[in-house]
Amino acid sequence: MSSSQAIIGIDLGATNIKSLLMDKEGKILVSDKRPSLGNEGKEKVISQIISSIKTLQKEGVKLGISQFLGIGIGSPGPLNVEEGIIYQSPNIPGWQNVPLVRILEEKIHLPVFLENDANAAALGEWWKGAGKGFSYILLLTLGTGIGGGAIINGKVYRGARGCGMELGHMIIKEGGMICGCGARGCLEAYASATAVVKRAKALIKQGHKSYLSRFIKDANDLTCEDVFKAASKKDELALLIVEETARYLGTGIGNLLNIFNPDVVILAGGMVKAKEVLFNPVEKYTRLNCLKSCWEMVKIVPAKLGENSGAVGACATVLERKGII
Amino acid sequence: MSSSQAIIGIDLGATNIKSLLMDKEGKILVSDKRPSLGNEGKEKVISQIISSIKTLQKEGVKLGISQFLGIGIGSPGPLNVEEGIIYQSPNIPGWQNVPLVRILEEKIHLPVFLENDANAAALGEWWKGAGKGFSYILLLTLGTGIGGGAIINGKVYRGARGCGMELGHMIIKEGGMICGCGARGCLEAYASATAVVKRAKALIKQGHKSYLSRFIKDANDLTCEDVFKAASKKDELALLIVEETARYLGTGIGNLLNIFNPDVVILAGGMVKAKEVLFNPVEKYTRLNCLKSCWEMVKIVPAKLGENSGAVGACATVLERKGII
Repeated sequence: MSSSQAIIGIDLGATNIKSLLMDKEGKILVSDKRPSLGNEGKEKVISQIISSIKTLQKEGVKLGISQFLGIGIGSPGPLNVEEGIIYQSPNIPGWQNVPLVRILEEKIHLPVFLENDANAAALGEWWKGAGKGFSYILLLTLGTGIGGGAIINGKVYRGARGCGMELGHMIIKEGGMICGCGARGCLEAYASATAVVKRAKALIKQGHKSYLSRFIKDANDLTCEDVFKAASKKDELALLIVEETARYLGTGIGNLLNIFNPDVVILAGGMVKAKEVLFNPVEKYTRLNCLKSCWEMVKIVPAKLGENSGAVGACATVLERKGII
Repeated sequence: MSSSQAIIGIDLGATNIKSLLMDKEGKILVSDKRPSLGNEGKEKVISQIISSIKTLQKEGVKLGISQFLGIGIGSPGPLNVEEGIIYQSPNIPGWQNVPLVRILEEKIHLPVFLENDANAAALGEWWKGAGKGFSYILLLTLGTGIGGGAIINGKVYRGARGCGMELGHMIIKEGGMICGCGARGCLEAYASATAVVKRAKALIKQGHKSYLSRFIKDANDLTCEDVFKAASKKDELALLIVEETARYLGTGIGNLLNIFNPDVVILAGGMVKAKEVLFNPVEKYTRLNCLKSCWEMVKIVPAKLGENSGAVGACATVLERKGII
């Protein structure tokens, strides 16, 4: 009976491990969340992942699941999907060249599939979220950095060596601000949450008056969410920063429409909480910066799966790799 | 007998119509070239195309060809591949919304396939040129404007509505120079042959000394080829312009490596005649502007098919659409 089959999806984050047991139709059967404990080192993180999987399996069996089809892991990169190795994880000391797929397969005796977190999110949104029914899907994750994924006809776009879709490192301002990658003028340097905070702090330190300065004690504590909240309350400085951020995002998204001509662009990640203030200006600047033929008919929408996006995407990864979806 | 089958490919240019009769293995059997006569109007151009096709058929029959599999047409856009309509042709007065596929099929009684010229060039280079054997191919045409095409696993990348790969309209300098498309800072505005000439003229008019001023009577006659020729003779001003052009091209190509992670980037079009002076700086700036993982193993190469590129690509279009390659 096919309804007794299930998939496990793991969203391996810097702070938490979020896991889901889902059936093949995309129904969530069991969920689990526990701290990653990255500061306790690599072994601890792996044992947290294994405990989470075992919990889901135990609960699944109680629900009548007789077959676990596989385990998907969505993780921040850099990583190698084919070899199942995570090269590096900035928030876990000692996490270098970890062959996570082999380690887990030896312990759990189920097929394990590794996926870049932005690709997993894109696949999850295509399977059960904002990208459902579309053939050409682009997803941007707007957070500390800017990542990207593309789903073309239901398959993750990988490129020749699995390292493309680095949409945050598209240069939109040649010779501009320096980016963490070493190049100048990357989208990420202008439009990530980090960039928003940096600009806000600089403007406040210059003495610009803002509602922002009222609800923070120290400009150092400022978050991107604070800026967007202030903008939603019509704070002028915050609105200016949002407008500028949207201009850069619109430049980057306009480029991507001209290049990929997608059906839909899905915006995901922390910054999308601010969709009420962000989406209108982003659409305005995207339209200004792209050809009419590529703008017409495209949808720019927020991700739908919210907190579960990574784990749902990890489940979808299992189904994609096994050729089930 | 399969060797008695052949394909016709037409490169519909503003000045000339270049046509080839090829066998399925890519051997050129007959070629034909005649003026497009665009200034004599739409009907004249169509009759030139038909004469060219009939010439190839006649010669083909003499060579023992018993079956013509189809006719491919590579044309500058904007056009609709699926409906077989060329919306506009800037150099042919009255050429608007011409249903070329239907017109030709009615006259010739063979299946006709329309393709954007840059896509056709990319497909041709994949079939029989610099892209042979690769899975992820990007092609940029560097000429009056900058166009692009991508071949992924042997198929033309089309996007949702066939209007993607507008690589010349990728914004690399937000807020920069105005482009013909209305946006600011497009790659085309900085790195096309038109941009090269514009910059050279401006610098000469400012009184900069250059070898260039020696071999042109009037700065208005200056061509991009002149600039590259002067650069190859170590003219300082010309070298500066080439370096700057390469910097912008390297920014754009670096972006495309970060996004697509291709196996190979093929540079085609008039500017590639200057490959001796252009390729080294383009590679240097591309490497500077892209992530190490996306730079490693990629090849940046000139197109191989030269003058025949468009017509070979048009032949390949027939084979691609019929699922033969």
